[in-house]
Amino acid sequence: QPSPHPAEHQHCRYNPLRDEWVLVSAHRVKRPWQGQLEEPPAEDVPRWDPANPLCPGATRANGEVNPHYEGTFVFPNDFPALQPDAPAPGDSDHPLFQAAAARGVCKVMCFHPWSDLTLPLMSLAEIRAVIDAWAELAAELGASYPWVQIFENKGAMMGCSNPHPHCQVWASSFLPNEARLEERTQRQYRDQHGVPMLLEYAEQEARRKERLVVENEDWLVVVPYWATWPFQTLLLPRRHVLRLQDLRDSERDSLASIMRRLLIKYDNLFRVSFPYSMGWHGAPTGPHLQEDCGHWQLHAHYYPPLLRSATIRKFMVGYEMLAQAQRDLTPEQAAERLRSLPEVHYKQRPQ
Amino acid sequence: QPSPHPAEHQHCRYNPLRDEWVLVSAHRVKRPWQGQLEEPPAEDVPRWDPANPLCPGATRANGEVNPHYEGTFVFPNDFPALQPDAPAPGDSDHPLFQAAAARGVCKVMCFHPWSDLTLPLMSLAEIRAVIDAWAELAAELGASYPWVQIFENKGAMMGCSNPHPHCQVWASSFLPNEARLEERTQRQYRDQHGVPMLLEYAEQEARRKERLVVENEDWLVVVPYWATWPFQTLLLPRRHVLRLQDLRDSERDSLASIMRRLLIKYDNLFRVSFPYSMGWHGAPTGPHLQEDCGHWQLHAHYYPPLLRSATIRKFMVGYEMLAQAQRDLTPEQAAERLRSLPEVHYKQRPQ
Ligand SMILES: O=P(O)(O)O[C@H]1O[C@H](CO)[C@@H](O)[C@H](O)[C@H]1O
Ligand SMILES: O=P(O)(O)O[C@H]1O[C@H](CO)[C@@H](O)[C@H](O)[C@H]1O
Repeated sequence: QPSPHPAEHQHCRYNPLRDEWVLVSAHRVKRPWQGQLEEPPAEDVPRWDPANPLCPGATRANGEVNPHYEGTFVFPNDFPALQPDAPAPGDSDHPLFQAAAARGVCKVMCFHPWSDLTLPLMSLAEIRAVIDAWAELAAELGASYPWVQIFENKGAMMGCSNPHPHCQVWASSFLPNEARLEERTQRQYRDQHGVPMLLEYAEQEARRKERLVVENEDWLVVVPYWATWPFQTLLLPRRHVLRLQDLRDSERDSLASIMRRLLIKYDNLFRVSFPYSMGWHGAPTGPHLQEDCGHWQLHAHYYPPLLRSATIRKFMVGYEMLAQAQRDLTPEQAAERLRSLPEVHYKQRPQ
Repeated sequence: QPSPHPAEHQHCRYNPLRDEWVLVSAHRVKRPWQGQLEEPPAEDVPRWDPANPLCPGATRANGEVNPHYEGTFVFPNDFPALQPDAPAPGDSDHPLFQAAAARGVCKVMCFHPWSDLTLPLMSLAEIRAVIDAWAELAAELGASYPWVQIFENKGAMMGCSNPHPHCQVWASSFLPNEARLEERTQRQYRDQHGVPMLLEYAEQEARRKERLVVENEDWLVVVPYWATWPFQTLLLPRRHVLRLQDLRDSERDSLASIMRRLLIKYDNLFRVSFPYSMGWHGAPTGPHLQEDCGHWQLHAHYYPPLLRSATIRKFMVGYEMLAQAQRDLTPEQAAERLRSLPEVHYKQRPQ
């Protein structure tokens, strides 16, 4: 039975940042699920485990011993996908067989000395310290590398192999696909419309409100109009900001606050430490620091896999891999659910 | 310690079909894995289960009773993401908020009446029947719809919620993202080089041999030079063929044979029913049947998630979602491993 509500009718939406479409079939969430169930995250992570290479005082794969750090802690990834000194591949002999040099560095950053803490359970001062460390790494590696990708894989479901709260920073000698794509679409948008795409988008969403999740004086979080993952969000500054390192003191504080509010809602949604991959995109660096990057706007993407519960995820498989992403509830429905959740963490609420 | 073998040095490779790059960091496979383990597929699937809606004689969600089918069996998806009659969304009031109509149909096709059988364990005649049914559906739905996506999600890891051997067919009123992308890249390639991209690619790979997995008189399977998934393959005809329905009788037989050889190798790799999503891409249909589609070449993509063993998959997460796909062994290494595997299924081998 087709629903009378137009949001319930299937349609496609355009993602202007990736120049692609998503199929929205909101009625699909009604189908029963008999497929794979995910394991909920372990609840009994020890606060300190000398066998865990991310802990203070623990020994890492390369034999080095971690200091007894008390805040954030950055160290080189012991199994880096990018190394600074890889030789360039030979010349291509055919347009269908093209290779290019790839150089870079991979770092790991622990958010906190405790293994049983996650960002939503940290204090604002602790989250602020993470933000400062991000900005520092972005500036330091960005001095020479064109792209510095800061990302967090949270939860085993997202390929994270260590429960200790941490993120990674991979800096590369090339602009990765997603950066090239956002470079092209943001440049074209400003050329055509005279304003940075995501600055205009934040203004529009602040006014339209139906996809807002949380907002404060400097930031807003929306389920973007073109979200593909069920509870995907986009974190945007209200001011035109190119890079993390350009954030003012007060903007870093308000970022800590809005991140915590978002992440508490995420955890409250299914009463589980919410898995996701998240990461920052900002104007390219290295040689691009000298160029006009005014079409760029700093932003963070959150891509969480869960759909119905702590154990039922969205599978981006067959049709999605071969044709087009498809979502089972509208972005407005997702935003409404997140908006209505309390801003006190379920673990910290008086029972 | 950097290895002297150049294949071991990280580099990027270009995917001309998707106009994007993949980061190849072959040394990464050496890192230990302490993350999530997958559950191997159930080995005790009953051949016939009246409670399974895909079985002959079973009752489906909509109350209909399946016939006692003996070959392939096609029926409408009871929870379709695409329906023929969805109304068009209202006009867009802003370039960042664009929606478009989406109409279509979703069908399910059982490969065989038995639930405990998979394609690699079927006879050539049974696989040939599947190919004929694919070609028939592609022609029938393609008479009006611009795109007919045939795809198989195999294994719970790939979001498949029913062990009964089956695929899906989603026909849409629009060209999905992947189709638009391959339309653009193949058109540009032919414009620039005068030959269809994938026809030229098949010829090159047949000659270079290092990425070949299996081949016969009409077909070849390679781990493409730009593969992102560890054991991803591309199935290509040697002749210029636009669509499944254009395949000759003998080409359908040789397709059944090469598919079985590939899928037996896949199962033999980790001695498990190998999970994957696969699907067919060919020239668009509907109104496009009237246009010159000579830049297109029929092909199938196989996207299998496993990396190290039956229980260790590749996670395409943080860096991959936010920056660029990254692989942990070279395509040549993957092809060499698949090539060296026996063509007799491990379950059918004399012990
Ligand atoms: O239709 P199914 O098999 O229930 O569902 C599966 O395939 C669909 C098409 O790839 C996906 O959208 C779903 O996420 C997946 O679980
Ligand atoms: O580096 P980690 O956390 O061991 O690995 C994880 O993140 C990487 C970057 O997104 C991915 O390439 C790996 O597949 C994933 O398991």
